[in-house]
Amino acid sequence: MTDLAQTSPLQEEGRSARKRRAIMEAATGLFLRNGYQGTSMDEVAALAAVSKQTVYKHFTDKEQLFNAIILGAAERVGDFTDTVAAFADTENLEEDLGELARRYITTVIQPRTLQLRRLLIAEAGRFPAIARDYYQRAPGRTIDAFADTFQKLAGRGLLRIDDPSGAAAQFAWLILSQPMDRAMFFADEQQYTPADLHRFADEGVRVFLAAYRT
Amino acid sequence: MTDLAQTSPLQEEGRSARKRRAIMEAATGLFLRNGYQGTSMDEVAALAAVSKQTVYKHFTDKEQLFNAIILGAAERVGDFTDTVAAFADTENLEEDLGELARRYITTVIQPRTLQLRRLLIAEAGRFPAIARDYYQRAPGRTIDAFADTFQKLAGRGLLRIDDPSGAAAQFAWLILSQPMDRAMFFADEQQYTPADLHRFADEGVRVFLAAYRT
Repeated sequence: MTDLAQTSPLQEEGRSARKRRAIMEAATGLFLRNGYQGTSMDEVAALAAVSKQTVYKHFTDKEQLFNAIILGAAERVGDFTDTVAAFADTENLEEDLGELARRYITTVIQPRTLQLRRLLIAEAGRFPAIARDYYQRAPGRTIDAFADTFQKLAGRGLLRIDDPSGAAAQFAWLILSQPMDRAMFFADEQQYTPADLHRFADEGVRVFLAAYRT
Repeated sequence: MTDLAQTSPLQEEGRSARKRRAIMEAATGLFLRNGYQGTSMDEVAALAAVSKQTVYKHFTDKEQLFNAIILGAAERVGDFTDTVAAFADTENLEEDLGELARRYITTVIQPRTLQLRRLLIAEAGRFPAIARDYYQRAPGRTIDAFADTFQKLAGRGLLRIDDPSGAAAQFAWLILSQPMDRAMFFADEQQYTPADLHRFADEGVRVFLAAYRT
């Protein structure tokens, strides 16, 4: 009774998920390269090698597709906030904070993340809710994780901090600002070596601890 | 022999300069609100109340108009670098640096400057030379001025600094990053009170001096 030419519901689901992923990957590349306005659903369909009808089956319009891509990118931040939370138990403040700062800058200062940031800033006027959402779920969430951890370290007597949120933001920008700010304006160059990034991290940690260590 | 209906060369020049200014003001508003691609020379002419021919007499194309606006904005940074240079002679490091930081953040965190920054980041891919030029003439130039001044203060034995450029960038971002970063993503809200901005400045100066004061 089995008809080999037919697909099972499970196969169908796998194929649908694959197509959805192909659409999102194609759209991400186009949005990052050509901006929101410079990207059409026709191009997305062509690049993903699916029909336009299939694109619209998965995403009702371009804005919904854009939103799904941004939320997907924000979700990937999750892992790093766990690392930040675990640091609250450190037995070696300076060394562990240095290591954390190096991982932080290496995670954030990547071509894909920087392009996404540039795209979101460009579209913040058109899509304020999407930009706000991303901010809260990605950079804002990481800074909140640092604030929680710094507060715990202050509770353990290792740091002296009145305003954990302010101190966490200072920490984040001491580490990230120099390469990130340049990358926003110098879209075509960039490329910091890991050694460059480690130096920004180390210098940021040094300044932070000078101000906040007990 | 004087014909009152005719204009003198001087009046003609004044009228031409007025029209040029009107075109630039109209275009600035449109670019900031609608982006580069969302702005047409027709709209610029209509908003400036001049003919399209007049627009093209002053600016050969939209890119040249955009470039002139960005360079004009960058030029206005000049005054502040003089203030930073004068600070090298301070007799009261902490108080004067605090005052300088408050002026710095108040100058930069203004709706117009932040909108311009957002626009430039959005267009950095399309116009890398314009974005790089602005960066070097405006934020980069201010940070260079801080680096010169910090080096002089180190020479006077008031600061301990190995890398004046790095320390100047840290100073700048300790002061500016928190409101600036939020403003990039939250295009529609913002509005920090002067007291908010002064608090960012004061906290940034405190951290900076903890790390760099002798």
